[in-house]
Amino acid sequence: MPGSHCTKDIQKNINCSASAPLPSNSPATTLTELQPLMAHPDLQSENDKPQMDKKDSAQPAGRTNLQKARARFLKGVSYFSGDMEVFGKWMQKQFILLQILDWVLRGAAQVMFVNNPLSGLIIFAGLILQNYWWALNGFVGTLFATISALILQQNRGAIAAGLYGYNGILVGLLMAVFSNAGDWYWWLLLPNIFMSMMCPIVSSALASINSRWDLPVFTLPFNILVCLHMVATGHYNHHFPQVLIQPRSELPNITWAEIDVAKLFMSVPVGIGQVYGCDNPWTGGIFIISLFISSPITCAHAVLGSAVGMVSGLALSAPFGDIYFGLWGYNCVLACIAIGGMFYALTWQVHLLAITCAFFCAYLGSAIANIMSRFGLPACTWPFCLSALTFLLITTETNKIFKLPLAKVTYPEKNLGFFWKLKKQEKMEKAEKEKEEKDEQQRAIEEEVILSEKEQLRLELERMEEGKVTSEASEGKNDETQIKDHVLDMEQQGTEEETRQNNLTEVTVADNV
Amino acid sequence: MPGSHCTKDIQKNINCSASAPLPSNSPATTLTELQPLMAHPDLQSENDKPQMDKKDSAQPAGRTNLQKARARFLKGVSYFSGDMEVFGKWMQKQFILLQILDWVLRGAAQVMFVNNPLSGLIIFAGLILQNYWWALNGFVGTLFATISALILQQNRGAIAAGLYGYNGILVGLLMAVFSNAGDWYWWLLLPNIFMSMMCPIVSSALASINSRWDLPVFTLPFNILVCLHMVATGHYNHHFPQVLIQPRSELPNITWAEIDVAKLFMSVPVGIGQVYGCDNPWTGGIFIISLFISSPITCAHAVLGSAVGMVSGLALSAPFGDIYFGLWGYNCVLACIAIGGMFYALTWQVHLLAITCAFFCAYLGSAIANIMSRFGLPACTWPFCLSALTFLLITTETNKIFKLPLAKVTYPEKNLGFFWKLKKQEKMEKAEKEKEEKDEQQRAIEEEVILSEKEQLRLELERMEEGKVTSEASEGKNDETQIKDHVLDMEQQGTEEETRQNNLTEVTVADNV
Amino acid sequence: MPGSHCTKDIQKNINCSASAPLPSNSPATTLTELQPLMAHPDLQSENDKPQMDKKDSAQPAGRTNLQKARARFLKGVSYFSGDMEVFGKWMQKQFILLQILDWVLRGAAQVMFVNNPLSGLIIFAGLILQNYWWALNGFVGTLFATISALILQQNRGAIAAGLYGYNGILVGLLMAVFSNAGDWYWWLLLPNIFMSMMCPIVSSALASINSRWDLPVFTLPFNILVCLHMVATGHYNHHFPQVLIQPRSELPNITWAEIDVAKLFMSVPVGIGQVYGCDNPWTGGIFIISLFISSPITCAHAVLGSAVGMVSGLALSAPFGDIYFGLWGYNCVLACIAIGGMFYALTWQVHLLAITCAFFCAYLGSAIANIMSRFGLPACTWPFCLSALTFLLITTETNKIFKLPLAKVTYPEKNLGFFWKLKKQEKMEKAEKEKEEKDEQQRAIEEEVILSEKEQLRLELERMEEGKVTSEASEGKNDETQIKDHVLDMEQQGTEEETRQNNLTEVTVADNV
Repeated sequence: MPGSHCTKDIQKNINCSASAPLPSNSPATTLTELQPLMAHPDLQSENDKPQMDKKDSAQPAGRTNLQKARARFLKGVSYFSGDMEVFGKWMQKQFILLQILDWVLRGAAQVMFVNNPLSGLIIFAGLILQNYWWALNGFVGTLFATISALILQQNRGAIAAGLYGYNGILVGLLMAVFSNAGDWYWWLLLPNIFMSMMCPIVSSALASINSRWDLPVFTLPFNILVCLHMVATGHYNHHFPQVLIQPRSELPNITWAEIDVAKLFMSVPVGIGQVYGCDNPWTGGIFIISLFISSPITCAHAVLGSAVGMVSGLALSAPFGDIYFGLWGYNCVLACIAIGGMFYALTWQVHLLAITCAFFCAYLGSAIANIMSRFGLPACTWPFCLSALTFLLITTETNKIFKLPLAKVTYPEKNLGFFWKLKKQEKMEKAEKEKEEKDEQQRAIEEEVILSEKEQLRLELERMEEGKVTSEASEGKNDETQIKDHVLDMEQQGTEEETRQNNLTEVTVADNV
Repeated sequence: MPGSHCTKDIQKNINCSASAPLPSNSPATTLTELQPLMAHPDLQSENDKPQMDKKDSAQPAGRTNLQKARARFLKGVSYFSGDMEVFGKWMQKQFILLQILDWVLRGAAQVMFVNNPLSGLIIFAGLILQNYWWALNGFVGTLFATISALILQQNRGAIAAGLYGYNGILVGLLMAVFSNAGDWYWWLLLPNIFMSMMCPIVSSALASINSRWDLPVFTLPFNILVCLHMVATGHYNHHFPQVLIQPRSELPNITWAEIDVAKLFMSVPVGIGQVYGCDNPWTGGIFIISLFISSPITCAHAVLGSAVGMVSGLALSAPFGDIYFGLWGYNCVLACIAIGGMFYALTWQVHLLAITCAFFCAYLGSAIANIMSRFGLPACTWPFCLSALTFLLITTETNKIFKLPLAKVTYPEKNLGFFWKLKKQEKMEKAEKEKEEKDEQQRAIEEEVILSEKEQLRLELERMEEGKVTSEASEGKNDETQIKDHVLDMEQQGTEEETRQNNLTEVTVADNV
Repeated sequence: MPGSHCTKDIQKNINCSASAPLPSNSPATTLTELQPLMAHPDLQSENDKPQMDKKDSAQPAGRTNLQKARARFLKGVSYFSGDMEVFGKWMQKQFILLQILDWVLRGAAQVMFVNNPLSGLIIFAGLILQNYWWALNGFVGTLFATISALILQQNRGAIAAGLYGYNGILVGLLMAVFSNAGDWYWWLLLPNIFMSMMCPIVSSALASINSRWDLPVFTLPFNILVCLHMVATGHYNHHFPQVLIQPRSELPNITWAEIDVAKLFMSVPVGIGQVYGCDNPWTGGIFIISLFISSPITCAHAVLGSAVGMVSGLALSAPFGDIYFGLWGYNCVLACIAIGGMFYALTWQVHLLAITCAFFCAYLGSAIANIMSRFGLPACTWPFCLSALTFLLITTETNKIFKLPLAKVTYPEKNLGFFWKLKKQEKMEKAEKEKEEKDEQQRAIEEEVILSEKEQLRLELERMEEGKVTSEASEGKNDETQIKDHVLDMEQQGTEEETRQNNLTEVTVADNV
C-alpha cells in the first residue's frame, strides 16, 4: 500500500543505501548469516531489529569479537528486512522481466504498507495455500496494474516500490473471491485485466486530489474499481455473476455463553488474512511472518488492530460468525498499521491514536457494511481508507503527533529514525541560532571598529590635503594618494551614503587646487 | 455552530474588548441594569440592539442625561448580548472547571451560531423542559467533546468559543432521541461518550479540508458521527437499538381543507426546536428568546427560515404531519441564519440569497430524507450543511454579496460593522489614492522644473568654462565650483545615466584646467 | 458543456478574431458562399475543415484562382464553424434580447461542448422533432438559467459562451422527460424555473472547488439538481410525480441469436440523442449534423463513444432493450468528446485514452444506474462526469498527453492549433537558449580580453604615477588624482561596458597631460 506516491525519497534511498553494505562483506558470508535467520526469524531478529539502523561500521577498530559479530549480523538483517534497498538497487541493473517480478512482489506486500519483495513472496505463498485460482488472479492483477503504470509513464520509482501494484492484487483477488461463477472461470480474467489496468489511472487521479493534503491514496482505487465491477454486473448477471450479499434485517439472538474462545483468538490471524480476502488462519499466520520480516512495529500494530476489531465486534453485538470470519478485523489491521508508525512517527501518543483509530474504524466498518449490503456490495476496505484519512487530516498543537511528509514515508523503524534526526537537527539549529546571534553581535562590534578606522583615515586625508595646499610638499603626495585609494577601495563595498560623502571630499579637493 | 475554526479573531476580540468596558462601571451597577433586561429582553432591547456597536464613549462631554442613560443602557446590553466578550475575558482568570462550564454553555448555543453562555443556559433550560434524559445526554456530549478537544490540544480560543462543543451536544442529544432503548438506558452513555470524543477529531479533519475554501465545518461532524452510530447498530441491534425509520412508499391523499392553520403556525417555533431534536413548541419558543438575546438578526432569520421550510413543505405536498412536526423547518432555520448575516455581511441581496438558500435547503431536505430513510437514517442536518456550503462557495462579480473571511466571523451585527468599516476604509483608500495620484502629478511637474534648472546650470557652467578658457580669470572659479557642487548634489538623486554624463563633463572641466 | 468557466480566453478570442476576416470579403459574398455549404455541410467541408485555421491571407499575392477560391471558401466556413467568433463579436453590439437568444442557443449546444449558436438552433430543431413540450421546457430552462446568471452577476464572457445555459437546458428537458404528469402539465414550469435558476448557483459553487484542479464542472449541476428534484418528489408525489424507476432484481435470459443488428446500429445515433433524453434516431442524426458543423473531431468522437457504449453493453450482458434505447451510449458520447480533443490536445495517445475512458464510462454507467435505481433515480450523466473528471486528473510523465489549461479550451481543432503553437514555441525557445549559451561563451571571451586590456591600462597608469614622482611635475598631479578618483567612482556604479569606455577616455586624457 502506498508508502507514498512520491518517489524522490525512494530514489534517494536507493542511492544513499550504496554506502551501507561494506564491500568486504562477501555475498557468501551474508548468505550463511541469512539462512538461519530465515528459518527462525521470529526468534533471532526479535531483539535486534530495532537497532539495525545504527551505523556500527563507523565505530573505532578496537572492538571485541562479539561486537563485530553483532555488527555483521545486523548488516545481514538489513539485507532482507525493511524495504530491501540493497536488493532493489541491485535489481535496477537486471533484465526488465526480473525487475517486473520484483515490482510485482513488492506490490503484493504494499497492501500492508510493506515495500519488501521477500514479504511479497511469502504473501503469495500464503495465497497459494488459500486458493490457487485466487492467487493466480491476484498475480495477474498485480502484473497488469504494473504494466499499465509503465504504459502510462507513471513515476518509475513509485512503480519500483510496488505502489501501482497493490491495488492490482486486491482487485484481482477480490474479483475472484466475490465471483459467483466458481473457480477457474477463465473469462473472469478479462474484467480482471481491464480493472487492473484502470488501477494506475484511478490512482493517479486520486493522487492529484489527495496530494493537496499530502495524503496517500491508500486502497481507494481498489475499493472504487471492485465496487464498480460488482455493482455494474450484480448477482444476476449472465457473464459475470457476483455472490449474493443482502442486508441483514434481523440479528439472531446471541448469548455470551455461546462464545467459542478458541475461535475468537483465531479471529486475530484470520482478520489479518482477510486483508487479502483469505479466511484460512494459517494464511493469516504466514502474513504475520511476512510483516515481521520487514518491520516488527508494523507486525505488532497489525495484531493489535485485529484484536481491537474483534473487541469492537463484541461491543456492538455483531453476530459471532462475522467476528470469527475476520470481517471485523481486516480494516482495523490496516488502519492501525497506517496510523501507528507508518504515516505518523511512533510515539506513545501516536500509539494511543492508532488504537482509537482502530476502534473508530471498526465502528465505521459496521456502518459501511450495512450500507453497502443494500447494493449487494461488501465493505471492501472503505472503512480503513476513510478512518485513516480522517486521522491523517487531524491538526494539533502538540509536537508529539508528527505526521511525516509523504515523500519521507518508508517503514516505521526508518520513519522513527527520520523523526529523531529531525528533532536533533531542530535542537542543533536552535543552538546554532543562538550562537549565530552571539556572533552577529561580535561582528557588529568589529564592523564598528573598521568604520572608525576608515573615518580616521579620511580625517587624515583631509588634513593632508590642507597641508598640501599650503606647503606644496610633494613627498607626502604618494602617501596621500595611497590613502585615498584605500578609502576608495573601501567605498566600493560601501553604501551610497559614503559614496556621496566621498564625492564631496573630492570636490573639496578639486576646489582647493 | 462554527462561527469559525479560526481563532485568531477570537483571541483578538478578547484582547481588544478590554477597552470597551469602562472601569467606572462597577459590576454592581451593571447587574442592576441587567436584571430588568433579562426579564423582558424582547421588549427593551428590540430597538437598541442594532446600535449597540456604536462607540458612544468617544462623543463630546456635553450630552444630555437622556443620552447618558442611553449610553449606559447600551453598555449594559453589550455585557450579555453578542458573544459576551467581557464575560469571556473575565472567565479566563477563573478556575478551570468554571471555564469548562462556560465553554459547554457556549457550545450548546453554537449549534445556532451563537457564541453566548447565557443563550446556552436558556437552551439547556429548554432541553430540560423537553426531556431530562435528552438534556443529560446533550450535556455529557458537550462536556466530553470539549474535554477531548483539550486532550488533543486543539486551539484554546476555538474551544473557549464552544466550537468543539456544538457537535458534541447534537451527537449526545440525537443519539438519545433516536435510541429505541427508552429513556434512562445508561449504557447509551458509552457510545455517547465515544462519539462525542470523536467529534474534535472529525472536526479537525474536516476543517483541514474546508479551510482550503475558507469554509466552516458546520455540523458535518455531528451528521457523520450520528449516522455512523445509527447505521452501525441499526434497529435490530441487541445493545443499541435505533428507532425504525423506513422509506415512505406511498403518500396519503391530502386535501387543502384538512390543514390545521394553528398547527401550521405552531410549526415555526417547533421547526426551531427541531434543530435540537425537540418537538415541544415551548422549547422552540425558549430557543427563539435565547437567539434574540445574542443577536436579533440571527433570531429574525431563524423564524424566517422556519416559515420558508413550512411553505416549501406545502408546495411539495409533504404530509401535514411532517410539517407540523417541524421536520421541514430546522434545516432551513440553520441555512437561513448561516447565509443571512452570519457568513455573509447582511445586505438586501444577501437577505434574498438567504431566503433562496432556505428554499433550496427545504428541497434538499426532502431529497436527503428520502434517500437516508432507505438506510434507516434520519436526514440529520445534512441538508443544511450541503446547501449552506453550496451558497458559501458562490463567487460573483458584485460587491453587494461579501463573504466575510472565516477568521472575522462573529455575529451578524458585528459582522455588519466589520463590513461597513471595510467599505469605509476602501473608500478612504480610494480617495487617498486619487490624492496621491494628484500629488504624483504635482511632483512630476516639480521634478521637471528642477531638471530644467539643472540643465540651465549646466549650460551656465559650460558658458563659464568657455569664458574661463579665453580670459583665464581666476575669480570665476569659486562660482564654478559652487555650480559643480550643485550639479553633484543633484546627481545623488539622478540615474546612472546622468551621473555618467556629468562625470564626463567634470572630466572635461578638469581637463581644461 | 463547459468549454471552460474561464473567459479570459473567450474575450481574447473575440478580440483577436477581428483580424481574421478581410474587409474586402463583403457580407454578401460570404452569404452566397455560406448557403450551399449549409445545405450539404457533410459533403463540402469534410476535407477542408481541418485546414481552416491556417492563415492563408499572409501568402504572396501571385496565387492561382483556385487557391484564392479555396481561401475564400475557408474563410466562409470559418464564419459558422468552430465557435463562430465573428458572429459572437457582431452580436455584442446588438439588442440585449437578441444577445440572450444567442446565449441560449450556444447554451443548448454547450451540452456537447459546442459553443456555436447555429448548432444550438439545429439541436432545438431536433428537440422539436422529438417532443414540443420537452423542447419548450428545455428552452425555458436555458433561458432562466442564463437570466439567473445575469442576476447573480456571473462572468459575462462565460454567460455569452453559453456556459450557464447548458445545465439549464438539461434540467428543463429531463425534468419534463421524467415527469409522470404527462405533457403540457403547466405546473411543472414552476420547479423547472426554480431549478434552472439554481443552476448558476450550483455551477459557481462547484467551479470554486473544481478550479483548484483546473477542472470544468461538466454537467454536475444538472445531475445534482435533477436528482434532487426527482428524489425530493418521487413517484407518489401529488404535485410533481416522477416516472417509476425500480432496481432490476433479475435479468431476462438473452441469447445472441435474438440481436437485432439494424437496431444495434440505430443505437449509435440514438445514444447521441439520449444526451438530451431523446430516443428518436432522427433527432440523434440531427444532433450529429449540428456537431459536424462546429467541429468534425467532436462529431467523430461522439459517434465513436456511442459505438463503444453499445459494445460495452453487449460485453456486460445488458438487456438488449437498454442498448437499443441508447442508455449505454450517451455517457460514453460525452466522455469520449471531452477526453478526445476537447480538454486534451488530440494525439494518438489521447485518442486511445478517450476510447479507454468511454469503456470505463460504460462500466461506470452500469454501476451508477444500478445504484441510482434503488432510489428511483436515473443515472443522468453522473457516469460521464465522474469518468471524465478521473481521466482529466491523471498526471503522466509523457508530453504526448497534454491537458490544456481550462482558460485555453475552445474546440478540438483550435485546441490542436494551440498545442502545436506551444510545441513550436518550446522548440524555438530551446534553440534560442542554445544560441544564447553560445553567445554567452563568446561574450565571456570578449570580456576577458577587455579585462586584460583594462589591467594593462591600469598598470600603465601606475607606471605614469611613478614617473610623476620622480619628475616632480606638480601641475599634472592633481588632475591625475582626480581622474583616478573618477575612474574608481565610475566603476562602483557603472556596468563593465561603461567602465571600459570611460577608462579608455580617461586614459586618453591622462595620457595627453
